[in-house]
Amino acid sequence: MKTIPELSFSKLGGIVPVVTVDDDSGEVLMQAFMDREAWQRTLTEGIAHYYSRSRSKIWKKGETSGRIQRVREVFVDCDADSVLLRVFQEGGAACHTGFRSCFHRRVTDSGLETLGEALFDPAKVYGSEDGDEHE
Amino acid sequence: MKTIPELSFSKLGGIVPVVTVDDDSGEVLMQAFMDREAWQRTLTEGIAHYYSRSRSKIWKKGETSGRIQRVREVFVDCDADSVLLRVFQEGGAACHTGFRSCFHRRVTDSGLETLGEALFDPAKVYGSEDGDEHE
Repeated sequence: MKTIPELSFSKLGGIVPVVTVDDDSGEVLMQAFMDREAWQRTLTEGIAHYYSRSRSKIWKKGETSGRIQRVREVFVDCDADSVLLRVFQEGGAACHTGFRSCFHRRVTDSGLETLGEALFDPAKVYGSEDGDEHE
Repeated sequence: MKTIPELSFSKLGGIVPVVTVDDDSGEVLMQAFMDREAWQRTLTEGIAHYYSRSRSKIWKKGETSGRIQRVREVFVDCDADSVLLRVFQEGGAACHTGFRSCFHRRVTDSGLETLGEALFDPAKVYGSEDGDEHE
């Protein structure tokens, strides 16, 4: 039976921020949150689960689209209030907009610049751009 | 004059989570938060500023230790409620414990395993292990 390390969920009212990295490229794919159940299921099932603030419930990433995240390594930060996941991203793209990373917009002196291209059309995957992958 | 992109500060009561990456190695160094002032100062000064939840005030990373973070690139996520900084980390170590990354503890089946070694002795830098670098 696996040991589930204790995290400081109380600082943000029951959730902790999570950073998710593509284990092959090292690229930061997304930032999301976990509640205690998402943390336990991520560790026991080896598939990333998060907590959706907008829907107030646990969220298995890729449940609709098939773009699940297979967890390869998990790290806990120095004061146990933040988590880093290194994952294999099924389908290549983590973002509900179709981009590989949610962080595809760079800040420039004149505003935001979009880098790269979408790998899929979210309207075809979710039926609307917003999709249920959206945190 | 630079354009400061608008972020969704309201979801977490005035702060947004920030992921900070070493621009040379790509390693995730830390996860912290920014309020609006920290966001503005980070962009205008090019030095990472955060918001300390424990001290309820803005926090210039490295102000005591000299281990400041020089910002090379800034990204905003798909729904503008999270920030990614790519930085040059002065002194090599971002964590107040002396480790390069705050995420130096890996989850194993039997508990947390510490990877690597501290690059400095926090007691000598801050006078106590906790230091003022601690979020």
